[in-house]
Amino acid sequence: MSETTSLRVLGISGSLRAASWNTKALRTARELAPAGMEIEVFEGLRDIPHYDDDLRTGSGYPAAAERLRQALKAADAVLIYTPEYNYSIPGVLKNAIDWASRPPEQPFDNKPVAIAGAATGLLGTARAQYQLRQMFVFLNGLVLNKPEVMISQAPTRFDAAGNLTDQATRDLVTAQLAALRDWTIRVRR
Amino acid sequence: MSETTSLRVLGISGSLRAASWNTKALRTARELAPAGMEIEVFEGLRDIPHYDDDLRTGSGYPAAAERLRQALKAADAVLIYTPEYNYSIPGVLKNAIDWASRPPEQPFDNKPVAIAGAATGLLGTARAQYQLRQMFVFLNGLVLNKPEVMISQAPTRFDAAGNLTDQATRDLVTAQLAALRDWTIRVRR
Amino acid sequence: MSETTSLRVLGISGSLRAASWNTKALRTARELAPAGMEIEVFEGLRDIPHYDDDLRTGSGYPAAAERLRQALKAADAVLIYTPEYNYSIPGVLKNAIDWASRPPEQPFDNKPVAIAGAATGLLGTARAQYQLRQMFVFLNGLVLNKPEVMISQAPTRFDAAGNLTDQATRDLVTAQLAALRDWTIRVRR
Amino acid sequence: MSETTSLRVLGISGSLRAASWNTKALRTARELAPAGMEIEVFEGLRDIPHYDDDLRTGSGYPAAAERLRQALKAADAVLIYTPEYNYSIPGVLKNAIDWASRPPEQPFDNKPVAIAGAATGLLGTARAQYQLRQMFVFLNGLVLNKPEVMISQAPTRFDAAGNLTDQATRDLVTAQLAALRDWTIRVRR
Repeated sequence: MSETTSLRVLGISGSLRAASWNTKALRTARELAPAGMEIEVFEGLRDIPHYDDDLRTGSGYPAAAERLRQALKAADAVLIYTPEYNYSIPGVLKNAIDWASRPPEQPFDNKPVAIAGAATGLLGTARAQYQLRQMFVFLNGLVLNKPEVMISQAPTRFDAAGNLTDQATRDLVTAQLAALRDWTIRVRR
Repeated sequence: MSETTSLRVLGISGSLRAASWNTKALRTARELAPAGMEIEVFEGLRDIPHYDDDLRTGSGYPAAAERLRQALKAADAVLIYTPEYNYSIPGVLKNAIDWASRPPEQPFDNKPVAIAGAATGLLGTARAQYQLRQMFVFLNGLVLNKPEVMISQAPTRFDAAGNLTDQATRDLVTAQLAALRDWTIRVRR
Repeated sequence: MSETTSLRVLGISGSLRAASWNTKALRTARELAPAGMEIEVFEGLRDIPHYDDDLRTGSGYPAAAERLRQALKAADAVLIYTPEYNYSIPGVLKNAIDWASRPPEQPFDNKPVAIAGAATGLLGTARAQYQLRQMFVFLNGLVLNKPEVMISQAPTRFDAAGNLTDQATRDLVTAQLAALRDWTIRVRR
Repeated sequence: MSETTSLRVLGISGSLRAASWNTKALRTARELAPAGMEIEVFEGLRDIPHYDDDLRTGSGYPAAAERLRQALKAADAVLIYTPEYNYSIPGVLKNAIDWASRPPEQPFDNKPVAIAGAATGLLGTARAQYQLRQMFVFLNGLVLNKPEVMISQAPTRFDAAGNLTDQATRDLVTAQLAALRDWTIRVRR
């Protein structure tokens, strides 16, 4: 990879609500992407129906699921911002992963992945993130270990317009993106 | 609770496909329910839209989600048969839990829960079950420890008509139901 | 159990160092125990040798391990304060559990358990606690769900003499003890 | 790394008992190591005292702990065979990790790691392995995703002399070693 090559990162927010902290944080990550990295934010988790293997083997991949699969396939790396619902990732995010993981191609295989999350509480999505990490063992995603981005007390770190203004958090988001870039280059075959 | 009182157990299968091993196993559990226990199988996970907090706070609970919430509220205990997708529970099952868990009433609170699962492989949904157990810490579900029901190599244990015919597995399913009954009575306040 | 009966709770700190936040917090818990509950702090994890099944089947339980087993057997409930080492519980605590769990009697079986922990960081032993909870599924310990006691930023919550002075934390510790008392009575057979 | 350079892998068995399936499996792995890989089996977990930070900051690393630290530091990769005790790794193995993880150098940092395990039951150490994987997130160990080596029903796979004779299992062990070799080369900086 030459120095001018741009890494394409697919960003996914696990929340559907309009004012989601995770969606806001992901947008900030897109702005903070280092030189040589472009983050595309995937829109459309909402449009992916509940996974049903009869549907897949019957009429094939629904359009929104296929769009996710193609976007993952085209990406050099994946960046997931997940909220924590009931000590795990949201069902809607898991459902997207369930569709993405099926044959013939499994787009997470050997793909560098960074996991992050924002929450109003102190634990900042930690529990959801460790469950998500376990899923990527099966998927053979190459999950970045560090830095872990767990944005706690989110309402204190964003301004009224939804911008992530807390500088320490911005620095952490930036550091993770740099680490993801380095990791992606490092594991490239 | 008098000896003639029947425990009402709400059974949930985490799979949507018609020939699901988990749905079949849950039906078998319903047949094997001990005296004094009735298992109602909840149908309708498919109809619950993706969780979106804007939807809930805007137009309220969708009909299918409200139906699940009421069924959980009315139940004395819950029995979940979950497949394992990507080393966790299916998105569609998690989505149902996400809707069920929201205010004003959280129907899993203090509710006895038994977890089971069937899979074609050797590990038999173990990874999904431990993730699900962690969710119930948040939800304050009272999850039965033992016996754990992890039906491995499912295709060898059912007949062509979808009946769970393996006697050892039938005995295990029966033992878990008896343990759930005892546990439900034990923790009743 | 009559109202004057005292619940005997065995308290275990997972840290060996003299100035351990967890040992200090456990001592505070002992002082805050509600009427009808007495907390005995187990000393001696250090004296239990590394688990070796050859040792157990050869010369039997080492004295310190046997002492722990008897203390657990005599207790109505168990309270564990664990630090977090490498995102899990300390080896020395796990080793004690490994000895306690062996035949002929498994003293955690059906025993009410409360889990707590203190740490200097923000996550306050959360990761260690969820791993410990999984161990108690095997052991059939009846682990209290709530309140979870994760004392973060411990150095700000204790005075120079090692007393837990932060009132909100004291209240949380007290609330967990009350919940453990109620839970112990509730699951008593 | 030239083609003739040998990868030095440090092998660790988490069990102390003489007839341990994991120690036997690790010895077999040593024999099956591919060209260009040498597996040294670390002996001495038994001699590492319980972790106590006062001991470390007082008299420094105990000799056995320092020996483990140096062996890890000198290794290009680590191979851990762990039994499952109480749904997690043995205390003695966790204790070794606790000592290894402390300053000034943390020898697991950026180190390729493969995890395997043998058990008499069907689940074959799965639960212990996922807990161990979580520890390596903190330690920034680069844990190989696949193939996972979970040797179930161990007594049926070894002969009376303790040799791993089951060919499918031998092939799996071999495949993991090859994957560890490729992974080690891939992530080398």
